[in-house]
Amino acid sequence: MEGVDRVCPRFHRAIELIGKRWTGAIIRMLMEGPRRFGQLVEAVPGLHDRLLSDRLKELEQAGVVERRVYPETPVRIEYELTARGRDLEGVVAEIQRWADRWIAAPAESSRA
Amino acid sequence: MEGVDRVCPRFHRAIELIGKRWTGAIIRMLMEGPRRFGQLVEAVPGLHDRLLSDRLKELEQAGVVERRVYPETPVRIEYELTARGRDLEGVVAEIQRWADRWIAAPAESSRA
Repeated sequence: MEGVDRVCPRFHRAIELIGKRWTGAIIRMLMEGPRRFGQLVEAVPGLHDRLLSDRLKELEQAGVVERRVYPETPVRIEYELTARGRDLEGVVAEIQRWADRWIAAPAESSRA
Repeated sequence: MEGVDRVCPRFHRAIELIGKRWTGAIIRMLMEGPRRFGQLVEAVPGLHDRLLSDRLKELEQAGVVERRVYPETPVRIEYELTARGRDLEGVVAEIQRWADRWIAAPAESSRA
C-alpha cells in the first residue's frame, strides 16, 4: 500500500546488517584492502577473536565479505570485500564525513 | 601516529551510535519530519515502547534528536531531528541506495 507511514524494510535490513556492533568498523578496515584475521583484531579496539569470527561469518553469509585462502606455506588467509561490499563505499564515506563533523576526537571528548 | 592500521575512532563511535539496533530505522522515519511516539512504534515492526523510549533517550543525549512538548490540550509531544541529526541525510540516502540495489524486497526474500 502506498502512503503507509512505515520504515522501508530494505533500509531496515541493510542498517541492521551493517550497523551491528563491530561490523561497521570491520567493513571500514576492509575498504582499504584485504586483511588477515590478526590485522582486523588489532585494528579495532575491543574486538576479540570470537566476535570477529562471528561477524566475518555473518558478512560472508550476507555476500559482503569473501574469505580467500592462498595455498602457500604457511597458508595465507585473507578477508576482502565482494562487489556488494565495495559498493558500501558511499555509506562509509558519508558516515566518516558526519563523524568528522559532529563527533569529538577522543582527546577532546569527556570520557569518565 | 600516522600510518597505524587502526580504524578511525570517530568513525567507530558514529557507526556504533547510528547503527545500534532500531536506531537507524528511527532516524530514517524522523528524516521525513517530526513524529509522535506512537507513530514511531507503528512505523517500525518489532519495536516496542520500552525499546523506543531507550533509543530516543540515547539519541537525545547524543544531540541527534530533540523532544518537543507543545502545551496544548491534550499535550502534544513530538520527536524531531536536530541539525546534527538532519546532517545524517547523506548517510541515510546512501544506505537506502545500497539497500535498493543489494537487498531483496521482502516478497522475494527467502524467509524461514
